[in-house]
Amino acid sequence: MSINYPDGRRSKAQQTTAIKRKGSAANRGMQLESLINVANTYYIENNIAVITKRPTPINVVKIDYKKGAKIVDAYFEKQSTTDYNGVYRKVYLDFEAKSTQLKTSFPLNNIYEHQITHLQNVIKHGGIAFFIIEFSTLSEIYVVPAALIIDFIKNNTRKSIPYPTVKKSGILIELSFNPILNYLPAVQKLFNL
Amino acid sequence: MSINYPDGRRSKAQQTTAIKRKGSAANRGMQLESLINVANTYYIENNIAVITKRPTPINVVKIDYKKGAKIVDAYFEKQSTTDYNGVYRKVYLDFEAKSTQLKTSFPLNNIYEHQITHLQNVIKHGGIAFFIIEFSTLSEIYVVPAALIIDFIKNNTRKSIPYPTVKKSGILIELSFNPILNYLPAVQKLFNL
Repeated sequence: MSINYPDGRRSKAQQTTAIKRKGSAANRGMQLESLINVANTYYIENNIAVITKRPTPINVVKIDYKKGAKIVDAYFEKQSTTDYNGVYRKVYLDFEAKSTQLKTSFPLNNIYEHQITHLQNVIKHGGIAFFIIEFSTLSEIYVVPAALIIDFIKNNTRKSIPYPTVKKSGILIELSFNPILNYLPAVQKLFNL
Repeated sequence: MSINYPDGRRSKAQQTTAIKRKGSAANRGMQLESLINVANTYYIENNIAVITKRPTPINVVKIDYKKGAKIVDAYFEKQSTTDYNGVYRKVYLDFEAKSTQLKTSFPLNNIYEHQITHLQNVIKHGGIAFFIIEFSTLSEIYVVPAALIIDFIKNNTRKSIPYPTVKKSGILIELSFNPILNYLPAVQKLFNL
């Protein structure tokens, strides 16, 4: 669940997996998270940015110390902030990645209120806040400013953002060979970095 | 293990606990991590900065879905980067907190090579990187630039940094009432933010 700091072998293995998936099973099974992790490893290795995934928080209830600190009772918790943050061109970045199978809109019910609050705070302190939104059926992945999502939630009663709004306000990530999900050029363009 | 996003009650509770500890048992049992978490909650609530603790990564081996996704076999992993990062005055911050009971030096054996690499990368991309170092026996906590530690490791064979070096190159955090470990003024001074 956690991204390890880059070592060549792991990174290569991850990339190969992602490429195979792309070639064989189209978008089915291609996980947005793993594509972002591969991109982040590439960015660190190639001195482009330092962006890491926050480990999934786990509430540990019981540890068996007789078995070498084996955790025997624990539960996954919701991430209290967002999944990713880091530094790129001296700027603090913070973002969340979400995927939908719908073609006409992006449902807002899987964005949590505390994530919106967190991203608002990030913007307030001069950071860059955005979402990476995948329309998996359309094979399109966008970088969308968090400010747009926040405004939309405040000014609309509907529970999803229409696809044309995402298309107009976000920037489509152009897939490349390495890394496949090279999302930073879209971020750079969107925020004039 | 994870810091939750602030809500008033939790924050108050944490602060009360910390204050009690301070009053009763001097420094014994006062944990550096909880003091930093309380400060971070204060900083978010008071619109000063957004700094969060990365959850402790856990390697999940087995999940029992019959019991509501209960994790029944898992192990703690080493943090692959550092424990804390965030944004303050438009600047990306990244740091690790360490405590020693020694009085004359800070041992380097609990700083991992991948953490040094990570902090070097952070500096390269325009972020601020530092350590919060507690000399628990002396009741002193310093903010020390990561660059100092990195230089020291490269140019010395000894396995610890002498206390006078930390004292000279770092800035002592002055304890306050709320938050107790108000470390950002020291960071600001050290890096001219």
